[in-house]
Amino acid sequence: MNVTIIGTGNVGQYLIRFFSKIENINLQICGRNSNVLHQFAVECECATVDSIKKIDTNADFTLLAVSDNAYKEVIEQMPNVKGIVIHTAGSVPLAVFGAKFNRCGVMYPLQTFSATRKSDFKNIPFCVEASDTDTLNKIHKLSKKLSKDVRFMNSEQRKVIHLAAVFACNFTNHMYSVAAKILESQHIPFAVFQALITETAKKACEMNPVLAQTGPAMRNDQSTIKSHLEILESNADLQKLYSFVSESIANFKKQEDIND
Amino acid sequence: MNVTIIGTGNVGQYLIRFFSKIENINLQICGRNSNVLHQFAVECECATVDSIKKIDTNADFTLLAVSDNAYKEVIEQMPNVKGIVIHTAGSVPLAVFGAKFNRCGVMYPLQTFSATRKSDFKNIPFCVEASDTDTLNKIHKLSKKLSKDVRFMNSEQRKVIHLAAVFACNFTNHMYSVAAKILESQHIPFAVFQALITETAKKACEMNPVLAQTGPAMRNDQSTIKSHLEILESNADLQKLYSFVSESIANFKKQEDIND
Repeated sequence: MNVTIIGTGNVGQYLIRFFSKIENINLQICGRNSNVLHQFAVECECATVDSIKKIDTNADFTLLAVSDNAYKEVIEQMPNVKGIVIHTAGSVPLAVFGAKFNRCGVMYPLQTFSATRKSDFKNIPFCVEASDTDTLNKIHKLSKKLSKDVRFMNSEQRKVIHLAAVFACNFTNHMYSVAAKILESQHIPFAVFQALITETAKKACEMNPVLAQTGPAMRNDQSTIKSHLEILESNADLQKLYSFVSESIANFKKQEDIND
Repeated sequence: MNVTIIGTGNVGQYLIRFFSKIENINLQICGRNSNVLHQFAVECECATVDSIKKIDTNADFTLLAVSDNAYKEVIEQMPNVKGIVIHTAGSVPLAVFGAKFNRCGVMYPLQTFSATRKSDFKNIPFCVEASDTDTLNKIHKLSKKLSKDVRFMNSEQRKVIHLAAVFACNFTNHMYSVAAKILESQHIPFAVFQALITETAKKACEMNPVLAQTGPAMRNDQSTIKSHLEILESNADLQKLYSFVSESIANFKKQEDIND
């Protein structure tokens, strides 16, 4: 089976590594960064091309892993390929392909990827969608080689999942960043939070996070909130963020109390 | 050794369970909830009293695990005890004891506790502080029975840690709650986020969270941000929260770029 992966960013690099481990796949990768191409040519023994114009038009699957806002332009530049064309983005609808390809679909791995970290695909949910039933079956079968957890999700559902993932992953990580900055001011290593962060994440996975909520905003402990805002006095941005998230927690609690 | 624990809330329950497993400790617990007292009398075979006036004034250690804003009142009501009096709150200074007790200190377990979850104390950092060196040594030795990770932190440092913990734990959990609500609107189970949440937490523990930041706000991907705000159109509170956290991520990135 011939598979081409276009893009060597965070998601692309994960896909390349995982596809290279599957038997009977001839992998071709396409990217602009010649160092990265060379690295993968050696590490994964795959063919490389440095331009979209040069990709294998006979590949069974052509996967796009580019920036969300680069999809339109990349698709326009693609030659007409015979196999199935797949994009991997959470927030990009299937319609981005327009009428350019007969058989197209989506394979969205619901995970955060960093170039420097290796992680296993097996437990990552893959959200799949396609132009027609036969293509969907083929994409489903391909995804099953990478993950145990493949789910059918249409563009609308995937868009909502992507939005929710921004809260659960990007915004969560920002809260960690703020915590790290605050600790830094007292020369306390962020490692002291390892048990707290691990338990908070485990709790959310094992019980409803709305019910797992703790802290001064949840308890409406105004004197602690006031004392925290005083510590943040020299940083108006963090002070506003603290107030805003605390109010949002209080609003959520009010909603829950009403629904009780 | 005689230990009394005052308070049977989330933190109190954890302390009771862990102290009851340590050999040669006679445990007395004090609380207002008679059901909880009875439950622990059976489960942990410890003595119980339902009023602060009745606590053992000869205990070697008397631990307070009450609400942050109840400390003053509870301390006023306490009889004069001969041993060491310890509070367990992150945001309450050692000075809350005033001149009431000769020997007092703090033992703050840096973790989020829920009554329905059991977790191991061994990896939880305990932040300790005391009125004098001898008391500090005794509290350190006691804490070492519960955890491998005992750290000396004064009231000022502990207050900052508690503030940072609000971001890393309470605010993080709120982001999970918002994500759960958004998924609910499309009838998508929150379990689909398990791999994402686990990886985000692991990443933050293994690399600097400021460097681990991903997502549309980090990439300054305004078209995705706009499309997300459109999905949230019917919820002004979440729309504001999304904008505010996104701006805060952008501000952090600007700071990092300046410091590069």
